[in-house]
Amino acid sequence: MRITVLAGGVGGARFLRGLLAAAPDAEITVIGNTGDDITLFGLHVSPDLDTVMYTLGGGISEDQGWGRDRETFTVLHELAAYGCEPDWFSLGDRDFATHIARTAMLTAGLPLSAATSALSERWQPGVTLLPMSDDTIETHVVIDDGAGPRTVHFQEWWVRLHAAVPARRIIAAGAQDATPAPGVLAAITAADFVLLPPSNPVVSVGIILSVPGIAAAVRAKTVVGISPIIGGAPVRGMADACLAAIGVPTTAAAVGGHYGADLLDGWLVDEKDADAVAAPELAGITVRAIPLYMTDLQASAEIARAAVALAQELGQ
Amino acid sequence: MRITVLAGGVGGARFLRGLLAAAPDAEITVIGNTGDDITLFGLHVSPDLDTVMYTLGGGISEDQGWGRDRETFTVLHELAAYGCEPDWFSLGDRDFATHIARTAMLTAGLPLSAATSALSERWQPGVTLLPMSDDTIETHVVIDDGAGPRTVHFQEWWVRLHAAVPARRIIAAGAQDATPAPGVLAAITAADFVLLPPSNPVVSVGIILSVPGIAAAVRAKTVVGISPIIGGAPVRGMADACLAAIGVPTTAAAVGGHYGADLLDGWLVDEKDADAVAAPELAGITVRAIPLYMTDLQASAEIARAAVALAQELGQ
Repeated sequence: MRITVLAGGVGGARFLRGLLAAAPDAEITVIGNTGDDITLFGLHVSPDLDTVMYTLGGGISEDQGWGRDRETFTVLHELAAYGCEPDWFSLGDRDFATHIARTAMLTAGLPLSAATSALSERWQPGVTLLPMSDDTIETHVVIDDGAGPRTVHFQEWWVRLHAAVPARRIIAAGAQDATPAPGVLAAITAADFVLLPPSNPVVSVGIILSVPGIAAAVRAKTVVGISPIIGGAPVRGMADACLAAIGVPTTAAAVGGHYGADLLDGWLVDEKDADAVAAPELAGITVRAIPLYMTDLQASAEIARAAVALAQELGQ
Repeated sequence: MRITVLAGGVGGARFLRGLLAAAPDAEITVIGNTGDDITLFGLHVSPDLDTVMYTLGGGISEDQGWGRDRETFTVLHELAAYGCEPDWFSLGDRDFATHIARTAMLTAGLPLSAATSALSERWQPGVTLLPMSDDTIETHVVIDDGAGPRTVHFQEWWVRLHAAVPARRIIAAGAQDATPAPGVLAAITAADFVLLPPSNPVVSVGIILSVPGIAAAVRAKTVVGISPIIGGAPVRGMADACLAAIGVPTTAAAVGGHYGADLLDGWLVDEKDADAVAAPELAGITVRAIPLYMTDLQASAEIARAAVALAQELGQ
């Protein structure tokens, strides 16, 4: 069984951990969002790729859901003593090593996909982890904090401003001239089905789908998604702020409708949102209501099992 | 009083600490050796500049004489887990921050002199610290470890091979096309005198003097040097292995003679080497024998005081 998953950070990684437990023999390819990537202190940081890699490789901070376990902050503290900016993005010493290793490979001329593959050698995540593109695509957010609209990097809005300033627009800068990384389209085409985990539909899955060629390849497949919205609120993160920027209500039905029947064949919503089964915006999509809180590995595996079962059913 | 010093790493830094105590009102410019600079894990490491900066700024590991105090090694350990090379160069977490900050500035287009100045803002070393050049000059060593001669970076010979393989030649690669960093020639010209601390005469002072224009500017000044050789052996480091490569005996007299009367006006040797005062190779150089072991700050200050006094005497 071949499964391809478009994944963001924490939600995607936790779903993938469940998927590996639910389908241990499947050949899983993960297409990771790199729109959140940012250069900090001259180093290339890929938060979503790292969250997947650390989570599946056993190096994640379980408390945070991102970053390394048992972190220390000596390097960051020293950089602050040099007056190096920014001071709003937390990077631990163990995490720094990943960014140093990645940046060294990129500087030596390797594409991000090759660097990701080399880093994954250590973590053995049990999936093939691919960046969505080797080209630079940055998620930018147009905000207006009083002095007129200005464009900031996603991380500045998300981390520094805690997404508290309303986003007017969210842009995948560079996407139109980008191509999918090697293996991305092939992994989608060769998959028995594609899964959209409960990642942020705008700044994670949405950015991946903005890479020319990816959305069309995904639409040609059986696709099952898992709602990141339960009972009118994001399970974690600030997806509501992102949805507001694109005019989509924060409901499981609206997010499924945003993906649309063109893309989605199946849509898993939480039991709280069982009324979505009959929602008009989900016409043409098979909707199932099951418990969607990924409280532990077993819960994540149950969700993944339901997604796989629905995809297999719809793919016949 | 304006003093310009050509300095390598540990010996140079300890002498400078003495000089600051001996001449607290002097305007001191330090021209640092960058031939030892090396790119490790994609980061620009400047060991000699950092040793001066950390020593004078109070951040040095006093035990080692190089590197930061109270170091931890999380980043290096993690890089090893990724299989990143080399595994023979020790960099602590605090030290890593310096190299990250420096590399970020260089990547942003700043010359090394500007990056050095920015890093020095934090350390307030009490001197103006200039790299010898903003151009890349790498000290290379031609060795023959059995399979015929090959050229390695100085650090590979010094740190990985512990200078145990004989050096056939020592080369300042890139020096002939380099120019002194901004301020270097002006600092030499404006100085009341130039001091050569007990740094390695081949791979520290020798490399600085190989930058076109520096030796000529230094020769025009009153110059006093301090012998790094006491009783036929280097006080620290492996200067003997470097001297062997250029055919100079490991004696205070031979090193003074290697610098030569063209360059040196005065030469301080240790009491053990008092016979150097009458050595024929030191003809034309004023030689004084005093205690030269820099056992503590007071001893270093006494040596610096003697150097300053001799330079003032010879400059009249």
